[in-house]
Amino acid sequence: MPHEFVLRHRVEFADTDMAGIIHFSSYFRYMEVTEHAFFRSLGFSVASRDAGIGWPRVDVGCEFRAPLRFEDELDVRLVVVEKKSKSLRYEFHITKVGEEPLLEVATGRMTVVCVAMDVEMGTMKATRIPEALAVQIDVAPEEILEISETQ
Amino acid sequence: MPHEFVLRHRVEFADTDMAGIIHFSSYFRYMEVTEHAFFRSLGFSVASRDAGIGWPRVDVGCEFRAPLRFEDELDVRLVVVEKKSKSLRYEFHITKVGEEPLLEVATGRMTVVCVAMDVEMGTMKATRIPEALAVQIDVAPEEILEISETQ
Amino acid sequence: MPHEFVLRHRVEFADTDMAGIIHFSSYFRYMEVTEHAFFRSLGFSVASRDAGIGWPRVDVGCEFRAPLRFEDELDVRLVVVEKKSKSLRYEFHITKVGEEPLLEVATGRMTVVCVAMDVEMGTMKATRIPEALAVQIDVAPEEILEISETQ
Amino acid sequence: MPHEFVLRHRVEFADTDMAGIIHFSSYFRYMEVTEHAFFRSLGFSVASRDAGIGWPRVDVGCEFRAPLRFEDELDVRLVVVEKKSKSLRYEFHITKVGEEPLLEVATGRMTVVCVAMDVEMGTMKATRIPEALAVQIDVAPEEILEISETQ
Repeated sequence: MPHEFVLRHRVEFADTDMAGIIHFSSYFRYMEVTEHAFFRSLGFSVASRDAGIGWPRVDVGCEFRAPLRFEDELDVRLVVVEKKSKSLRYEFHITKVGEEPLLEVATGRMTVVCVAMDVEMGTMKATRIPEALAVQIDVAPEEILEISETQ
Repeated sequence: MPHEFVLRHRVEFADTDMAGIIHFSSYFRYMEVTEHAFFRSLGFSVASRDAGIGWPRVDVGCEFRAPLRFEDELDVRLVVVEKKSKSLRYEFHITKVGEEPLLEVATGRMTVVCVAMDVEMGTMKATRIPEALAVQIDVAPEEILEISETQ
Repeated sequence: MPHEFVLRHRVEFADTDMAGIIHFSSYFRYMEVTEHAFFRSLGFSVASRDAGIGWPRVDVGCEFRAPLRFEDELDVRLVVVEKKSKSLRYEFHITKVGEEPLLEVATGRMTVVCVAMDVEMGTMKATRIPEALAVQIDVAPEEILEISETQ
Repeated sequence: MPHEFVLRHRVEFADTDMAGIIHFSSYFRYMEVTEHAFFRSLGFSVASRDAGIGWPRVDVGCEFRAPLRFEDELDVRLVVVEKKSKSLRYEFHITKVGEEPLLEVATGRMTVVCVAMDVEMGTMKATRIPEALAVQIDVAPEEILEISETQ
């Protein structure tokens, strides 16, 4: 069962700032886009109006070790590190493509909660992850998590 | 009746790009924020869920004459140049605060349409501007429009 | 010689707004990303520090005909409609992938100027497009421009 | 000596997403804008070209407890929780204006490093915080930190 997913991105001009490097908030965009592609790879959409399900973030973070620049390519590797009945926790290992040795330029994490959304009311309430999706997602085995931690 | 509105903004760090100046797309954010403050000044919200009314843009544009930089302050002057039963057209005259003589660093425009939104269906259909709002908005008189054009 | 270039994009979650559709400013991101990929396809970077060349926008605009939603795919077709010694003008024809008949959901345009940038001084001055790039870019022939206009 | 700073923000339309609430990445914009206003309040700019000093983020995070919506106002209270010779660490306590009892809707943190930037070379190296700035910034006293932690 899938416990990880990799998506390649490119640093675009609008993602940079006057310091000449990527603006740190861009990493959160890359992480989220990767998560949504992971869901699509399982036949799900993170935001389907019909389903009435949403996935707000409750805790996010990122450490930055080296800057990326315009037109750099990066691989964002999503790893599922926790799966509860109503939430998922990911780590994101971000590396610059073509760099030898491979440097993890940034490490992110996100905890997301599955909620039932009432669009009319504008409310949301934690709910169980739909079974058809939950059965497809697994937590990464110990050895992968350990490798991630020692990188 | 109001036909113009001015809001002051500051160029923030995330609004710049690696060229060391403001990214052009930031101007559209400033213009939209100014429009929404204009609506609030009339007691309306551009996006109230209850009302089921939305204001998609159908035509936007901007000319840029001089760059702005981080921490520059700018005034965005919205002028209503056309009012139809279901749409409004604005011009935006953008000047850098503290510059003498005052330079219009950018000139924008937007045509927005009032639509009835069906959130359930995800559809929208042009509709008359709510009377209580329409009566409060006027088109700028000729002399103001002429001044704008010759700036 | 190249006078057009197509790049496929996907509407990401952060590109949407509370109206449930793509925020209009996202189109300018897609257009710019497409332009930069066009430059790369010719072996150039739109922002190379060494070259000291930049490409500020002096006039941009977009008409919107139909909304796009989360996870929609779109093709952005850049067409060069004018080439001067120091500037280029593009049109962008944006269509939703998989729609039959193909609908041009948005049409954009951008005029960009080639400038010599003095990073130390923070100044920029219009300059001739580097010959090695200029020789590779051509203006679209009449018939393509006409088709674009009647779409 | 200053160890905290508060700035009021408003959730703008472009800050929302199709879930009808603020997109989580917007909080990082608010936090950064608040930090830069804090620096300005001390007579400094976080990005002055002359100084050749920059402030990249090395670690950021945010917990979200309740969603904010379009036109909500929020106060972002920056608290300095650590000051080293070359770095600062902040906490951000974010509350919704007008809510009783006051709810901390989000809590952020950022560690930033002072670097000497060589724009020509595109490199940056950790350096001591300029004395004139460092003497003005203090770490929040214990009691404030404790209050923050128990909120």
